[in-house]
Amino acid sequence: MLRLAPPNFERPLQSAMFVATFGGGEANVAVSTANYGIPSSYVTVLPPKHAIADACIAELRSFGVDTSHIVRKPGRMGIYFLETGANQRPSKVIYDRDNASIALAKPGDIDWDKVFDGATWFHITGITPAISQSAADLSLEAVKKAREKGLTVSCDFNYRKNLWKYGKAAREVMRELVKSVDVGIANEEDVQESLGISADVDVESGELNVEAYKALSAKVLKEFPNLKIQTITLRESVSASHNGWSACLNNGKQFHLSRKYQITHIVDRVGGGDAFSGGLIAGLDRYGDDHQSALEFAVAASCLKHSIPGDFNRFTAEEVESLMKGGGSGRVQR
Amino acid sequence: MLRLAPPNFERPLQSAMFVATFGGGEANVAVSTANYGIPSSYVTVLPPKHAIADACIAELRSFGVDTSHIVRKPGRMGIYFLETGANQRPSKVIYDRDNASIALAKPGDIDWDKVFDGATWFHITGITPAISQSAADLSLEAVKKAREKGLTVSCDFNYRKNLWKYGKAAREVMRELVKSVDVGIANEEDVQESLGISADVDVESGELNVEAYKALSAKVLKEFPNLKIQTITLRESVSASHNGWSACLNNGKQFHLSRKYQITHIVDRVGGGDAFSGGLIAGLDRYGDDHQSALEFAVAASCLKHSIPGDFNRFTAEEVESLMKGGGSGRVQR
Amino acid sequence: MLRLAPPNFERPLQSAMFVATFGGGEANVAVSTANYGIPSSYVTVLPPKHAIADACIAELRSFGVDTSHIVRKPGRMGIYFLETGANQRPSKVIYDRDNASIALAKPGDIDWDKVFDGATWFHITGITPAISQSAADLSLEAVKKAREKGLTVSCDFNYRKNLWKYGKAAREVMRELVKSVDVGIANEEDVQESLGISADVDVESGELNVEAYKALSAKVLKEFPNLKIQTITLRESVSASHNGWSACLNNGKQFHLSRKYQITHIVDRVGGGDAFSGGLIAGLDRYGDDHQSALEFAVAASCLKHSIPGDFNRFTAEEVESLMKGGGSGRVQR
Amino acid sequence: MLRLAPPNFERPLQSAMFVATFGGGEANVAVSTANYGIPSSYVTVLPPKHAIADACIAELRSFGVDTSHIVRKPGRMGIYFLETGANQRPSKVIYDRDNASIALAKPGDIDWDKVFDGATWFHITGITPAISQSAADLSLEAVKKAREKGLTVSCDFNYRKNLWKYGKAAREVMRELVKSVDVGIANEEDVQESLGISADVDVESGELNVEAYKALSAKVLKEFPNLKIQTITLRESVSASHNGWSACLNNGKQFHLSRKYQITHIVDRVGGGDAFSGGLIAGLDRYGDDHQSALEFAVAASCLKHSIPGDFNRFTAEEVESLMKGGGSGRVQR
Amino acid sequence: MLRLAPPNFERPLQSAMFVATFGGGEANVAVSTANYGIPSSYVTVLPPKHAIADACIAELRSFGVDTSHIVRKPGRMGIYFLETGANQRPSKVIYDRDNASIALAKPGDIDWDKVFDGATWFHITGITPAISQSAADLSLEAVKKAREKGLTVSCDFNYRKNLWKYGKAAREVMRELVKSVDVGIANEEDVQESLGISADVDVESGELNVEAYKALSAKVLKEFPNLKIQTITLRESVSASHNGWSACLNNGKQFHLSRKYQITHIVDRVGGGDAFSGGLIAGLDRYGDDHQSALEFAVAASCLKHSIPGDFNRFTAEEVESLMKGGGSGRVQR
Amino acid sequence: MLRLAPPNFERPLQSAMFVATFGGGEANVAVSTANYGIPSSYVTVLPPKHAIADACIAELRSFGVDTSHIVRKPGRMGIYFLETGANQRPSKVIYDRDNASIALAKPGDIDWDKVFDGATWFHITGITPAISQSAADLSLEAVKKAREKGLTVSCDFNYRKNLWKYGKAAREVMRELVKSVDVGIANEEDVQESLGISADVDVESGELNVEAYKALSAKVLKEFPNLKIQTITLRESVSASHNGWSACLNNGKQFHLSRKYQITHIVDRVGGGDAFSGGLIAGLDRYGDDHQSALEFAVAASCLKHSIPGDFNRFTAEEVESLMKGGGSGRVQR
Repeated sequence: MLRLAPPNFERPLQSAMFVATFGGGEANVAVSTANYGIPSSYVTVLPPKHAIADACIAELRSFGVDTSHIVRKPGRMGIYFLETGANQRPSKVIYDRDNASIALAKPGDIDWDKVFDGATWFHITGITPAISQSAADLSLEAVKKAREKGLTVSCDFNYRKNLWKYGKAAREVMRELVKSVDVGIANEEDVQESLGISADVDVESGELNVEAYKALSAKVLKEFPNLKIQTITLRESVSASHNGWSACLNNGKQFHLSRKYQITHIVDRVGGGDAFSGGLIAGLDRYGDDHQSALEFAVAASCLKHSIPGDFNRFTAEEVESLMKGGGSGRVQR
Repeated sequence: MLRLAPPNFERPLQSAMFVATFGGGEANVAVSTANYGIPSSYVTVLPPKHAIADACIAELRSFGVDTSHIVRKPGRMGIYFLETGANQRPSKVIYDRDNASIALAKPGDIDWDKVFDGATWFHITGITPAISQSAADLSLEAVKKAREKGLTVSCDFNYRKNLWKYGKAAREVMRELVKSVDVGIANEEDVQESLGISADVDVESGELNVEAYKALSAKVLKEFPNLKIQTITLRESVSASHNGWSACLNNGKQFHLSRKYQITHIVDRVGGGDAFSGGLIAGLDRYGDDHQSALEFAVAASCLKHSIPGDFNRFTAEEVESLMKGGGSGRVQR
Repeated sequence: MLRLAPPNFERPLQSAMFVATFGGGEANVAVSTANYGIPSSYVTVLPPKHAIADACIAELRSFGVDTSHIVRKPGRMGIYFLETGANQRPSKVIYDRDNASIALAKPGDIDWDKVFDGATWFHITGITPAISQSAADLSLEAVKKAREKGLTVSCDFNYRKNLWKYGKAAREVMRELVKSVDVGIANEEDVQESLGISADVDVESGELNVEAYKALSAKVLKEFPNLKIQTITLRESVSASHNGWSACLNNGKQFHLSRKYQITHIVDRVGGGDAFSGGLIAGLDRYGDDHQSALEFAVAASCLKHSIPGDFNRFTAEEVESLMKGGGSGRVQR
Repeated sequence: MLRLAPPNFERPLQSAMFVATFGGGEANVAVSTANYGIPSSYVTVLPPKHAIADACIAELRSFGVDTSHIVRKPGRMGIYFLETGANQRPSKVIYDRDNASIALAKPGDIDWDKVFDGATWFHITGITPAISQSAADLSLEAVKKAREKGLTVSCDFNYRKNLWKYGKAAREVMRELVKSVDVGIANEEDVQESLGISADVDVESGELNVEAYKALSAKVLKEFPNLKIQTITLRESVSASHNGWSACLNNGKQFHLSRKYQITHIVDRVGGGDAFSGGLIAGLDRYGDDHQSALEFAVAASCLKHSIPGDFNRFTAEEVESLMKGGGSGRVQR
Repeated sequence: MLRLAPPNFERPLQSAMFVATFGGGEANVAVSTANYGIPSSYVTVLPPKHAIADACIAELRSFGVDTSHIVRKPGRMGIYFLETGANQRPSKVIYDRDNASIALAKPGDIDWDKVFDGATWFHITGITPAISQSAADLSLEAVKKAREKGLTVSCDFNYRKNLWKYGKAAREVMRELVKSVDVGIANEEDVQESLGISADVDVESGELNVEAYKALSAKVLKEFPNLKIQTITLRESVSASHNGWSACLNNGKQFHLSRKYQITHIVDRVGGGDAFSGGLIAGLDRYGDDHQSALEFAVAASCLKHSIPGDFNRFTAEEVESLMKGGGSGRVQR
Repeated sequence: MLRLAPPNFERPLQSAMFVATFGGGEANVAVSTANYGIPSSYVTVLPPKHAIADACIAELRSFGVDTSHIVRKPGRMGIYFLETGANQRPSKVIYDRDNASIALAKPGDIDWDKVFDGATWFHITGITPAISQSAADLSLEAVKKAREKGLTVSCDFNYRKNLWKYGKAAREVMRELVKSVDVGIANEEDVQESLGISADVDVESGELNVEAYKALSAKVLKEFPNLKIQTITLRESVSASHNGWSACLNNGKQFHLSRKYQITHIVDRVGGGDAFSGGLIAGLDRYGDDHQSALEFAVAASCLKHSIPGDFNRFTAEEVESLMKGGGSGRVQR
């Protein structure tokens, strides 16, 4: 997906320029895991013979992401406009994904058998099924097939109220999809809107109640016994420029709570959740049953994401571990 | 329509930036005539509550174009990507107009009675009917209504092969539409593709044959007796950076051929034709029956357009006349 | 007025570039009120046949501000250079307004009868009378005429020590001018320097004393019984990057104190006061006698201003109300 | 003088940016001669305590120009806005020099005895006396004093029609000034407008008549017997992007005509004349009585100026000689 | 290699910015062939744990170039500074390659057996052996090994006078290396300086003599009977902005001369020769024994390179063929 | 030294641009003291005939730094790449100084007698001796000579772990060098690594212990009785964006502790230490025996440095004193 953002905290078109990068939930996760040295493949549908789509593929390839499974079918290149907020002014996203190739894609368009051949993990987000009925059908096909073939399936439930316009409520679709998921990722709003499981959390307040999140994650695990792990990211929004950032993980046996980072000078908050997902997948891979470390890796990874512009999380595993183990004092390295 | 172009003669996404401006046939003409001091109104359909659409309207308003008749209806904001060519490398346009509000618009969406109230001239291009069947229907409604209400109707036949995908051939639609037109504007390819009237002209050769254009324009006037004036722009493409530029006008009585400009260092060629249309409308207004002067004004105006970036022609009538009457030697004014 | 500011927190000419925008007290207010949907006209004197002045008018027009009353008379285009501060480094303004058309303007140059025809409100600042004796005379003419014709007159007393060089002290001129004002706007320094009414407030300390402001505003209302409302903005300067921001309003009967915003990552502080004025005018219009709401609207509006670059406050009334009613937590909207 | 120019061949404020550099006739010459290794001092009057003026001085100092004689007196920093032309669109200059410190300067403000101490050459242009009566008086004082002290005085007569607004015609002032000059520099228009000596040359035609220039230069030498050398630059304006460039020199005994350069892709034409002046001074210094070489050096130097942006000519003597002696084929050096 | 170039035809550091891209002879060729769909691998030595080197690899990967054979060994990241010329001002390269990892590399550092496994073609340039004795030894090892393993070896002899500082003359090294080459690529200067075979061609004149090139290529083939094909590129340097561009190919049986392109508005000339090499390799692959077509493909490809910034040639085979078969009139495609 | 930094908090090559400025320990100090009006000369070795080196010299000259003692000898232009950190992400420096002219320089290359003629102060840092053995020898030669000739010698011990690769430990070299120093400048890490004198301070913790610094500075003075003053800068790293900043000074008789600044929005932290050194030298000059004031001046100066981009500290003594005496509330000055 092409991301178009005005520079320098401007509102759109305040100057005649857009910073043009690529992003989108699953792509961001693939870039993260590739950066950590995990062989990663990104699968989507893009328009054929389209210079912008070609550039998107080239960009992914630059990170070492395998793009050979990307299907080229009629439709547009998906776009989103991003206004980067500051202080009390929130960041705003304008989705421009109508008629995108992925929105027009339907079950059968992707040869999952081929895609999943040799793969061990499949990640999807709640954004793709929000675009269109056929994309939702395709998503469902994907997770079922992945599970069938023995892959671990992770899903970021992320709820986007500006999508979900094709007539179905998020929870109708997502509850079905989550039944094929092993590792659930969400924030409190996602759980509520995508699964209809409510948390006694005031999204706008900015303060956190750990017990509530423990209960909430347990509730999710109970309703979806297929889930082996449910993580919840805990974002305390002081302002668009300053967030507290931590997360918790419930594996049915233990409840892990991560260290909390004060991110006081957010450079670009978008992609933070995907950086968490990428970090979690890599963390579970690196640390095995040590779920606390996996969680800390994910939180540190996504903390770092907030310090650079763009959707993608451009850090190595060594850099993430360095934050995870160190103080985050930001002293110059020279 | 939002125009996104990479800077500095780069190919798309060679650097992570798009120069973002607005443009589009009819909008460009409205800006031109407003710049010449003619009260001008731009009518289109744009998406509601959309920061980019709002910025588009603001930009038009900055030129003094009346935007009060713009309708806001569901759909996308139309976009086109422009790669600016140089030397042997042609400029390339990627249209991204599927599901744009104007593509979804249909007869009845615009209150033409209100729009045309007090107006004397209506201009349309062959681009709008190329987007969708409903936009073609709306275009036809517009010209008929305009003619009915006694407005002079001008039309740039411009043929865009990358549009026209909804199942009709350009000539099917355009021949019907041109029946309600008073002043036809075209290049040789437009005449052939939009009207099916062929000229013995080799588009790619770059050389011009005046007699052929005289015959061609006469042929058009004969087939469409409603046309009072037919102009043909004569672009000699030496390269993407160097064009010869002139035009001819046939009013049924006389055939006028303009001075020819060598535009040797093209800054931005897109919008050149619209600058001609805007100049022609203004020229016919300024010079009345002196069609030679009207034509020269139009050609000088569009010549100047090639020297600045962006779709819009940012010149006053005084500046156009200064070129029209002077040598174009480009000496510093200080 | 043309504003020239180095980019990226640089000092002037650190790189060979100026970000060039337009601004100035009254213009900023007109843009604000136009953005809130209030028909707004900006009146000034600009040089004739001047590309920069034309661009200034076009920019105002883009916001829907009526520019038809702007007079073009000999003189320069006013300029100010702005160095944007950070941390302990203050922002610095270099005024370059000598011989500007508005500085040369004098009573009689503007046809106030025509300007005020159909108008209900007139806003002026203490900056215009600071430029030159003739501009002061013109300002005085304006407020008297406005009052005479029954308009509500608001005035931001803003004191600029780098102007006021033509031989008169600010208070000599401003005390006379304020006699024709209905709604006074100021910070503590403005009250002291423009009116000579002192407050027991240490401007540099950064801490606020509400009682002192209550007393101060009462003192102003007492000395100028024509004033129906006196507002005082309360800026706590922690650093150039972090300000506390609130305001109070005294209408003679009640003293209203607004919510206080911590603006911790100031993007551009200039124009903040004008955003307050624009918000106050719109707030009084929206909320009538509910002065608390009018004040909150004004404070929220100006709070938002600090989050975007440029003098102008590019927000809709809906966006202002959203902050006014919400928590300002800056969560991404998507 | 601060120069503000929109980037990328845009018209002013087409984007919200000005490229900000410094320039101005005499400063440009000082930079040129300093680049050629000649100790050079720039004398002017700039405003005191002014960050932009400080930056101007720093920029000059970076080239090794001695700035210790610059006087700081009240007034503005002079500005000029430059729109860079292309093709048939001419470059345009908007002078903004009213009330500049140099415009307010008057005889006595500069201690010429100190300035000229140890100096051998003084260069002035016809631009300074065009700004104001007092600047004209100061200019006259300067040349007289220079001549008195035995310096060689060179003067570029350059005529600027957009200046000369204080009531005197250029020739009234310039004819007096030129009486103290040893080396005259001009183009045909300058000779006509500044000295009132007419040439049978059509400025706009672009074609040159060598005999006419021979006669013209002889006429100047005859009317001003104090002149030892008169050079005339010969610019053939094909367009704003393409000029032919050569010059001639008449020393009363011989008439020298230089090689002619076709400058087909002008990057920035402003400062071209000053580059000639700087090259001529250096050339006369390097080649002594070999006036042909001196002229060739000057023409080659100014030819190169057209290939870089900004007023200043950033080339070494070696680079100029390399062009002067070579073919100008522009082959990559690596 | 990191390429650092000032923007907008500026001289170095005229503004505080470098456009930073990657390039270098063999890398440019690999990017070209990858763009044409030929599986391509780039082999070099880069410093370990180095963010700039990592970015270089990522950039190559974005084009689909296989980077798995790149060796990471101590040393610097090679850099070159490029000043882009215009008109009579030549482009200038400052090499900064001392102690680069590739300069320190020596025979044995690259496992050629592994590299060449499954490969059919090896391309090298005369630049690598010019850097250091050890790099020359490595180069020689490479071509011998390649030939031994039955690969076709192509070599661009390109002579760089600013390199070759380690004590050997180019021809000493290159004549040995060329003995293992099948396809020679050069311009007239390269033949003379790298092989010591002289052509009666005046490099600076700009005019071409076809017969001389025919004789010259025959002479090369005769001296190096191992060469199956010798091509010579024919650049007519009118100026840094305008070159004529064609080439010839001698296969011992026939002499082929290509169409000549006038490249009148050079955007970036660097990498033009490499684009020829890449085009030639692809052309010989596409057209087999039809050497005329292969040559035309190579010339068209490199012609297009001049129209975009950067070392890399970002065109598809379809785009190259479109120019090769069409007129190069540069008409907008839309 | 050329500094290349990606813009806008990007990681290297995230966009194809480097902001290119100059810097380096001793150069930064020379710029600082020149800005405060102290005649300052910068001595180093740079490559001959090198456009980047020339630009470096020009930049220094722009600040009024005397560059006439700079020696031009073979070698590269030193470079460092800087990634500017934010939040928990540290800034990172990649040194690229192998084979730089200064790295190749050796005793005898600089004529210290000439350099020190008329000078009263010599400043050096621990960075130069870290580059190479010969640079260390040259450094030692310099301080001994300076001391011999009666100059006051100051030295910033700054330890750079990414340099020091030529086989010696920092303390081996630095302990010898510091024996010729009068004024020592360091942070706690420098003292430990460069002198081997340990402090009970946890570098990463961010909290400060004043007593520890008192003891540490006393220890240094005791071991190096030649030192008249030892200062220690106290940086509390909350994050890469927020530092506490203060310093202490021990002159053997008294221990001075400065005011502490909270620098909450760091624009560019690099050069902060050099700004302290420059401020200290100037402060000792301005305030004589009033070491508290000298220290406060140094701390205020370096505090301001953090608010602007680039290595150089672009402030006047008046601006530094204004912060030193005022509150640092950052209120707009206009």
